[in-house]
Amino acid sequence: MSELRGACIIGQSGGPTAVINASALGVIRTALDTECITRVLGAAHGIKGVLDDRLYDMNQEDAAELELLKYTPSSALGSCRYKLADPDKDDTDYKRILEIFRKYDVRYFFYNGGNDSMDTCNKISKYMQKAGYECRIMGVPKTIDNDLNGTDHCPGFGSAAKFIATTCMEVHRDAHVYDTGMVTIIEIMGRHAGWLAGSAALATWAGYGPDLIYLPETDFDLTDFLDDVHRVYDKTGKCMVAVSEGIHRADGTFISEAKTSATDGFGHAQLGGLAAMLADAVKLETGAKVRGIELSLLQRCGSHTASKTDIDEAFLAGKAAVEAAVSGITDKMVAFRCTREGGYTCQTSLEPLEIVANAEKKVPREWINAVGNGVEQPFIDYVLPLIQGEPDAPRTNSLPRFAKLKKVLAH
Amino acid sequence: MSELRGACIIGQSGGPTAVINASALGVIRTALDTECITRVLGAAHGIKGVLDDRLYDMNQEDAAELELLKYTPSSALGSCRYKLADPDKDDTDYKRILEIFRKYDVRYFFYNGGNDSMDTCNKISKYMQKAGYECRIMGVPKTIDNDLNGTDHCPGFGSAAKFIATTCMEVHRDAHVYDTGMVTIIEIMGRHAGWLAGSAALATWAGYGPDLIYLPETDFDLTDFLDDVHRVYDKTGKCMVAVSEGIHRADGTFISEAKTSATDGFGHAQLGGLAAMLADAVKLETGAKVRGIELSLLQRCGSHTASKTDIDEAFLAGKAAVEAAVSGITDKMVAFRCTREGGYTCQTSLEPLEIVANAEKKVPREWINAVGNGVEQPFIDYVLPLIQGEPDAPRTNSLPRFAKLKKVLAH
Repeated sequence: MSELRGACIIGQSGGPTAVINASALGVIRTALDTECITRVLGAAHGIKGVLDDRLYDMNQEDAAELELLKYTPSSALGSCRYKLADPDKDDTDYKRILEIFRKYDVRYFFYNGGNDSMDTCNKISKYMQKAGYECRIMGVPKTIDNDLNGTDHCPGFGSAAKFIATTCMEVHRDAHVYDTGMVTIIEIMGRHAGWLAGSAALATWAGYGPDLIYLPETDFDLTDFLDDVHRVYDKTGKCMVAVSEGIHRADGTFISEAKTSATDGFGHAQLGGLAAMLADAVKLETGAKVRGIELSLLQRCGSHTASKTDIDEAFLAGKAAVEAAVSGITDKMVAFRCTREGGYTCQTSLEPLEIVANAEKKVPREWINAVGNGVEQPFIDYVLPLIQGEPDAPRTNSLPRFAKLKKVLAH
Repeated sequence: MSELRGACIIGQSGGPTAVINASALGVIRTALDTECITRVLGAAHGIKGVLDDRLYDMNQEDAAELELLKYTPSSALGSCRYKLADPDKDDTDYKRILEIFRKYDVRYFFYNGGNDSMDTCNKISKYMQKAGYECRIMGVPKTIDNDLNGTDHCPGFGSAAKFIATTCMEVHRDAHVYDTGMVTIIEIMGRHAGWLAGSAALATWAGYGPDLIYLPETDFDLTDFLDDVHRVYDKTGKCMVAVSEGIHRADGTFISEAKTSATDGFGHAQLGGLAAMLADAVKLETGAKVRGIELSLLQRCGSHTASKTDIDEAFLAGKAAVEAAVSGITDKMVAFRCTREGGYTCQTSLEPLEIVANAEKKVPREWINAVGNGVEQPFIDYVLPLIQGEPDAPRTNSLPRFAKLKKVLAH
């Protein structure tokens, strides 16, 4: 394999995480230190920055500020949700990407994102091969949803899981402070996979967490749900519930999509989301004081309670992508191979983009209890290593100190 | 002043905070180490525990577990929202309290709470004096709302302010990740005083925070609000707003109380609270993508991001209460006298319960900007010292390790 000299582009795509910038740093730092990579360019808002010729010259960034990317949540370069067309139907974007690659002599493209981003990588790679333009393309995984195929887990998930578990423990304490009845319903992200909602079980495992957890891997029945809550509430005077935003009826419709029928107990105009809706149903049914809490964006940007393991692995994924590309590999996503028995170990592997793109990894049914209102010990054993370690994040005046990038546009 | 020997009771009351247990520890630790205090009793659920004769024998607790109270959110002994009757109208409760005090030879009563709790202290103290029962009664302040008179600030506020500022910084980063329009509305606690909502300005001061902040100290006008949001959004494509839950119209009615009139833009059945309601109004007006986020219980139980200053001062308040009572003082609340020029200093003082009870300290009007959509530098200078320092909170498996009390009932 002959050495391929040229510039690289790093882009970030999809919903941000607490550690996506640690992966960007893994790419940038390694690329800056690699002799055959002549220039490191950061795409403004992912592939849109490539199409718009808005690329930041990362060589001009201050090294110390770059290091702070490890502790800076959200996508520092900007993100996008842009889906490339099928190149056989419309190759406008691809021609433009090739034009930009030629302009900057881009020979390495690293894209940090979820399912859609791996699909973007795949399409660009195929187009470049067809066009005879030599370019190595690598996907770097990222998603709090943890739903990418081909990898043990995804960078971003561990920190979100840790935020959820920590928060559930604290809210549990708060919700148990009075000797009066109280039901608390926590709404957690994850439209199609229940990895995040399931992580609330870490709080229960640690002594203070939800009594009931509902994942989108099973069908949700309102009557069963109310029965479950009733049973716990009648026994203890309290009930704490964690629900995935993606819980759905047996016919596949989301519970969060309010029905106009009055018979299902959800016949209300509503603005406040699933937690508020379920809280209302429980209030009507039990008469208990009920509080619905939506963790919202907090769970995906909570870098102040990130997992050090997650940060380190996110960095490692970016680094491994560059090293693999430089060694001649292309069309792969960096993945993790982990062992948990006899102590947690995590190594990177490389998976074909095809097996990753556009498929969702769900929580195995056997990790969820039979009645579908909680998770089993294997789920805990799986998640626990991923939340370990406290990052040594710098603070100024006891507030987070995020990376300040110059973002000098490349010409 | 002759030495007063006897037992003491510590009770916790009202809404919990991240550091109310640090104050309890300040009382318990100091009382355990004080020779003339023969026994330390913790009231289960505040004054209700006294009335119900449910008192925990704190002498039987493990010292190391007690120390963890510094890092354990919410009220470890349980709380209540119980208002004592006017003793001239109904002295049933007071007779019962005296009976319990006599039963355990209680000569010291420490009550940790907000306005109502100081009123409770005051009433009990007056009754005991009238009954000729020698007993020293001290209030220990607590409230995230920071609305107690007679003190520079209240334990609990600094940690909540820090949670709010940290979270706003992280959410700001998340909400700015796409190059598409986005309005974010954060709902913050504080029904009558804007100390907490104003603390979101710390995030802006640190570089990433709300563009607009609305406090309950000024009247809220929906048209002005929408104009404000429009102006910021038109200029930058983003707008981040922090609102106090207590914002109200000029006639005093809360914005969160939906009107049925369709003319005010709020004529919707709603479940999701103020943030969702305002988000809906902004969506209708601007067509922008809008996200409403309610910080809910998270802001008052977020011990994982507590202020070390707050923890230390909360402990100090409890300790000072015991020391003052033992020295012969009664009928006071521990307060803070602080200086900020030439470096922050904080000392305890003792204030009469009367000036504290049943009054609310608001944000000075001159600390709020003229148009009422932000706070001025004096507000920042006031809050900043209170959020300083990271606690060295113990963790197990990278999750919080809360105090596990035995809670042995006293006989």
